Amino acid sequence: MFWSMKRLLDGETLTALAWGCAILGAGGGCDARTGLLEARQAVEEFGPVPLMDLDELHEDDLIMPCGMIGAPTVQIEKLQNGDEGGRLRDHLEAATGRKVVALMSAEIGGSNGLLPVMWAARIGLPVVDADGMGRAFPLIPQLSMELAGIAPTPCVMTDERGNVVVFRTTSGSWLERLARAATIEFGGAASSAEYSMSVAQARTATVRGSVSLAIRIGQTLANAQDDPIAELISELDAFCLVTGKVADVERHTTEGFVRGSVIVEGLGPDTGRLLRLEIQNENLVVLERGMVRASVPDLISVLDSQSARAIATERVRYGQRVTVIAMRCHPVWRTDRGLQAAGPRAFGYEFDYVPIEVLARAAA
Amino acid sequence: MFWSMKRLLDGETLTALAWGCAILGAGGGCDARTGLLEARQAVEEFGPVPLMDLDELHEDDLIMPCGMIGAPTVQIEKLQNGDEGGRLRDHLEAATGRKVVALMSAEIGGSNGLLPVMWAARIGLPVVDADGMGRAFPLIPQLSMELAGIAPTPCVMTDERGNVVVFRTTSGSWLERLARAATIEFGGAASSAEYSMSVAQARTATVRGSVSLAIRIGQTLANAQDDPIAELISELDAFCLVTGKVADVERHTTEGFVRGSVIVEGLGPDTGRLLRLEIQNENLVVLERGMVRASVPDLISVLDSQSARAIATERVRYGQRVTVIAMRCHPVWRTDRGLQAAGPRAFGYEFDYVPIEVLARAAA
Repeated sequence: MFWSMKRLLDGETLTALAWGCAILGAGGGCDARTGLLEARQAVEEFGPVPLMDLDELHEDDLIMPCGMIGAPTVQIEKLQNGDEGGRLRDHLEAATGRKVVALMSAEIGGSNGLLPVMWAARIGLPVVDADGMGRAFPLIPQLSMELAGIAPTPCVMTDERGNVVVFRTTSGSWLERLARAATIEFGGAASSAEYSMSVAQARTATVRGSVSLAIRIGQTLANAQDDPIAELISELDAFCLVTGKVADVERHTTEGFVRGSVIVEGLGPDTGRLLRLEIQNENLVVLERGMVRASVPDLISVLDSQSARAIATERVRYGQRVTVIAMRCHPVWRTDRGLQAAGPRAFGYEFDYVPIEVLARAAA
Repeated sequence: MFWSMKRLLDGETLTALAWGCAILGAGGGCDARTGLLEARQAVEEFGPVPLMDLDELHEDDLIMPCGMIGAPTVQIEKLQNGDEGGRLRDHLEAATGRKVVALMSAEIGGSNGLLPVMWAARIGLPVVDADGMGRAFPLIPQLSMELAGIAPTPCVMTDERGNVVVFRTTSGSWLERLARAATIEFGGAASSAEYSMSVAQARTATVRGSVSLAIRIGQTLANAQDDPIAELISELDAFCLVTGKVADVERHTTEGFVRGSVIVEGLGPDTGRLLRLEIQNENLVVLERGMVRASVPDLISVLDSQSARAIATERVRYGQRVTVIAMRCHPVWRTDRGLQAAGPRAFGYEFDYVPIEVLARAAA
């Protein structure tokens, strides 16, 4: 079969992709290093994976968004066995009566930007240059496909033992409820495919170009000379919130999520400042003296101050030298429906969303 | 279509069936009155349901065991909407690629002995004269089909809203775990079909004749003259453990089950005696001064001392005049595998099973 494609995802490209996914993950999607190891092994064994643009595929073909669901603290220890993607594909095809032609990351953030590549390598399919968030979010219906009215089910979930559950629910929130309960029974993490759609639907219902964007970000980091943080901020058009060290971490794994908070104490020019990050799998909010400095759906990432590599929420530790940055989310999240699904109030906060560029201007 | 059949289940027969199911439920399967109302309404609207013997059906045909799963305290308030059975049938047929020809009660006890009749009336199918327990038990794999090696899945679960979940698990205990979690999300009760099998398999893997037995028990009660309790005990070859009143009830709904205990204080000749019943949906154990007087898998039923009608665990109340009886379970539960699945140790008790007839002889 001859693929017209954007590029081949080989080992080197995957490394760049991983570092880009880590930044776009906003702390979530699970540490990209785990996904990188799994994806690299798969392309070494089964060959590189074609990255396709949605315009290159036939509009009736079926796209399978997929990834892991659950708590990243669990996912870094409870690895895939590799067969999950094939099983998801088989059961999704049985449930829909249609043939899957390409995989897509449900969320580009963290390991979830790489897992579909690993699965695609093993079952001989391409991945598409798009995802359902342009970042990572903790809840299933926090997807651009939900905003676009794509049906959330049939959703297929599986674990590394071979158990399979197929959900057909009346709404995305019912899927979240049932799939989360199954995830907890599976030990806090599971693999799933949901919101499957035709290529024609995917062209308008997804965040396009996000795989290429992640690769570009990773390459910027790899090629950075003197000041990787500054080069990254410039590439992303991001805002630096603080440079300092991690003074406290509170984190617990509950109800299939990682929840907690991180205190960052300013160093150098930021000496005397204290910022608090609040976490639900992803970095949700940054507060300083009771003022909101950044919030969902904008992306908040904690970077190693030396290497500018993003640190996933489950890897943040006391004493790390970090730089906290924030950047604009994809425009779909700034619409009314987007904010209803993934704005501060969707996470229980009692304040309205203010775009990061407005907050940054006010703070300056 | 002409059915060769044992009998038609009409309104009057259903009433007898209900009282028999209440007794065979050992306190569980949910108050049979709820199931009776639903089943009577369905046969009035759609006509009586044929009761078939497994020998009358073609051996390759598919039997669908079904019923409710969850806490009876929830089930008496959270009723079916009637469409669940048709939805279970449709999704089971899709998952197996085979046609369902008859419904069967997964457990004959309580409402679960009547629900399949209600569904069968509405979708125009017969029910078979058999079930998977000869009583009611709280856990899904506590079925004669599990002991016989029938595959537990595909299992289909649905709720009154129209959500559907299809499980394909590696074992009955994984099904219990995942289906219980979904049941809790559905509000503590759901409808399900599992351990589907061919007629040929069902002939040896089920407890046969249990619908007829329940009807016979109900008719004994309906025709009883002077002493319904005595007539029932004679019909069932049962043992009377105590006659008294309910002195205390402790009951809570947790993890999709009803758990608790009941204290019965002896009256009349039994004055001065105190018996304690322990409950997990069903009556599990009767204790007196630390001695086991009866235990699972034998059946323990709490009867109204006047009418001899069985009182479901969720309906037991302080002050009720009751007679506690116990009777032999189906022989399949007295095998090694049966006791491993549903003996006292399966419920966390640290004693071995002693048959009720041995315990009764020792107590006499």
